[in-house]
Amino acid sequence: MSQFWQPLIHELTPYTPGEQPDDWQSIKAKLNTNENPYPASPKALAAIREATNEDLKRYPDSDSKNLCQAAAKAYNLQPENVFVGNGSDEVLAHIFQGLFSKKAPILFPDISYSFYPVYANLYQLATNPIPLTEDFSIKTADYPAVNGGIIFPNPNAPTGKYLPLPEIEKLLKVNTDSVVVIDEAYIDFGGESATSLINTYPQLVVTQTLSKSRSLAGLRVGFAFAQPEIIEGLNRVKNSFNSYPIDRLAQAGGAAALQDHAYFTQTTQKVIASREALCNELQRLDFEIIPSKTNFVMAKPTKCEAKWLFEQLKTKGILVRYFNQQRISDYLRISIGTEDENQWLIDEIKALLTAK
Amino acid sequence: MSQFWQPLIHELTPYTPGEQPDDWQSIKAKLNTNENPYPASPKALAAIREATNEDLKRYPDSDSKNLCQAAAKAYNLQPENVFVGNGSDEVLAHIFQGLFSKKAPILFPDISYSFYPVYANLYQLATNPIPLTEDFSIKTADYPAVNGGIIFPNPNAPTGKYLPLPEIEKLLKVNTDSVVVIDEAYIDFGGESATSLINTYPQLVVTQTLSKSRSLAGLRVGFAFAQPEIIEGLNRVKNSFNSYPIDRLAQAGGAAALQDHAYFTQTTQKVIASREALCNELQRLDFEIIPSKTNFVMAKPTKCEAKWLFEQLKTKGILVRYFNQQRISDYLRISIGTEDENQWLIDEIKALLTAK
Repeated sequence: MSQFWQPLIHELTPYTPGEQPDDWQSIKAKLNTNENPYPASPKALAAIREATNEDLKRYPDSDSKNLCQAAAKAYNLQPENVFVGNGSDEVLAHIFQGLFSKKAPILFPDISYSFYPVYANLYQLATNPIPLTEDFSIKTADYPAVNGGIIFPNPNAPTGKYLPLPEIEKLLKVNTDSVVVIDEAYIDFGGESATSLINTYPQLVVTQTLSKSRSLAGLRVGFAFAQPEIIEGLNRVKNSFNSYPIDRLAQAGGAAALQDHAYFTQTTQKVIASREALCNELQRLDFEIIPSKTNFVMAKPTKCEAKWLFEQLKTKGILVRYFNQQRISDYLRISIGTEDENQWLIDEIKALLTAK
Repeated sequence: MSQFWQPLIHELTPYTPGEQPDDWQSIKAKLNTNENPYPASPKALAAIREATNEDLKRYPDSDSKNLCQAAAKAYNLQPENVFVGNGSDEVLAHIFQGLFSKKAPILFPDISYSFYPVYANLYQLATNPIPLTEDFSIKTADYPAVNGGIIFPNPNAPTGKYLPLPEIEKLLKVNTDSVVVIDEAYIDFGGESATSLINTYPQLVVTQTLSKSRSLAGLRVGFAFAQPEIIEGLNRVKNSFNSYPIDRLAQAGGAAALQDHAYFTQTTQKVIASREALCNELQRLDFEIIPSKTNFVMAKPTKCEAKWLFEQLKTKGILVRYFNQQRISDYLRISIGTEDENQWLIDEIKALLTAK
C-alpha cells in the first residue's frame, strides 16, 4: 500500500488468472486454463516469422486494418463491424467503460467469467448477478428489463453450457435500450455464433478471441463485432487509451490464423471428438457432467471430494481448475487435452480412486 | 454516434498518432514518428523467431517476470521496481487512472506529449497546462504546490529539450504529496535517467519504452520504474484490466533487446552523431534549432513557412511532422534518419528553397 494509491486502487479486487507453471518439468498435462491442445496454424507461425524483420522498428498499423479485414471475412461481416483488442479481455474492458451505463446495474450470470465483476469495479458500475437455473442454464426471462447492460459468455464459462441462438434472439427482441454482449470465447467448439444477428440488432455486441479455437493464447488478439456505430465508439475509447495495442507480429499472425480455415476446422473437430470421449470416460467413473459445447468440461466427482482430487492430480503433474465458489465447489473444470493427455488424466483418476 | 455510447465516449477527444503510410512505394524517408532509423538488435529478432513455436498456444506469463528482470538489470534496479505495459502509452494510461488524484489539477507543460490531456479526459481528471519559458524550457518553480500529480517528458517532446537531473531533484524535494512522472521515452539519446533517484523519492515514477532507443516500436513494450508500493498499485490496475497485456513474443524480444547493451550503445551513438550533423546542416540553411537530446529535432525554417515546407517535402516522399498548434506552428519536427535519409532531406530542402 502507498499514500500515492488513489481511492480506486484500494477498491479494486484484481482478477486471478489460472496458474501458469514456472517449472514445466513436473507438468505432465496442463488442463487448467482452456488453452488449445494443438498448436497454432503453421501458416500463422510462418506469417509471424516473416514479420520478424527490421520493420519492427516501425509502429504497427494503429487500426489493424489487415487483421480486421481477415476477421470480417471469416465471419461474413464488413471491416466496419470489427474492433480488435489486445486479447478479448482488453476488448471487454473497453466495452465496460464505454458502452455500459452507470444508471442501472450490469447483469450477468451468478456463475460466469469472474473478470466481469472486476471490470465493473474498475469502472465503478453497479452489478446484479442473475442466478443460473438449477441445471446451470441461463434463463433470459430472468434478466430484468431495467439494466445498464447485459453480458454473458455463450457457451457459458466455467459451466460450458450453451444457450441456443433463438434464446438470444428472444432476449434481443425485448432488451432494446441497453447493450447486450455475447462473449463467444468458446463458440467454435460446437455452438452457433450470434454474429449472424449483428445486422438486425444495433444493441448486440459479440466478442471473440484467437486464444482458444485458433491456439494463439500467447499472441493476445480479441475482437468485438457489432454495427459500425458501436465499433466507432469502441475505437474512440481505444484511441484515448493506447494508439497501438496490437503489435506487428500479432497483426500478421492473427490474420494468417483467421485465413487458415481448413486447419481451424480440423483442430476444433479433434477437440470436440476428444471432449465427447473424455466425458464418456468420466461418466464411466461416476462423474456428473454438465453438457459442454466448449474445449473444457465441468465434471463433479461422486466418489471423492473435488478439491481433494484437484490437489492429488496436481501432485501427479496434472493441472485442472478448482473454483472455491458456491454451487460449483463440487466440480473440477478440465480443459480438453490431446488424446494422450486425456488418457493420462483418466488413468490417474482411476489410480487415485482405487488407492483411496 | 450511437444511442449506446455512454456520456464518456461523447466527451472523449482521441489522440491522433503520426501518419503511417499505407503505400510505402512513394515514401523515400519517414521522419515523422520518431522511430529509430536502425533495426532492432539481431539478438532480439532471433529471440522472437525462437519464441515463434507451438508454445504460442499457451498464455504468456501474466507478470512478464523475465522481461522485468532484464529491465531491472539494465537500469540497476530490482524486479520489484519494474512495471511493464503494452507500450509506454498503456503504462501512462494506468498511471493516470491509478496514481493521479482527482482532488487537484494534473500539471504538465503547455507544449508536450499531446496524449496527456487525452488520458486526463478519459479518466476525468482536471488539468492545468504550465507554459514553457520563452526558450521552451520547463521551469519547475512554475509548477504549483497543490496538484493532483505532475508529468512531463524528459527530454520534452515535441521540443526535444532536456531538463538536467538536478532540476528534477529540486522539484522532487518540494513536491512530496503527489506523484511526479518523468516520461523518458527519449532519454537514451543524450540525457541522464531519473531512475537513479527512485530509491530516494517514493513519489517518483519514471516511464520508458523500447519503441525508440531499442528500435522496437512495432513490438509494444513500455515500462514504469518506481518504488515497489507504486509498482504494486499499477499491477492492481493492470490485473483489473487485462491479465496478459504482453504477448510471448514481446516478452522474449524485449528481454533480448535489453540484454544487448553493445548494440544499443552503438545505434544510439550513431543517432546522436547524425542528429548533430543534421542540426549543423539545417543551421547552415538558416533554420532555428531547439537544442535536442532526442532522436528528433524541432527546427524552424526562416526562409519559408513551416507548413509549406512540410507539404512540399511530403510530395517528395519525405514525411516530417507539423503541429498546427500555438507557439510551435513555425516549426517542423524531424526524426533523425539514417545518414542517407538525412542527406535526402537536406538536398530536398535546398532544392525547394532554391526553386522558391
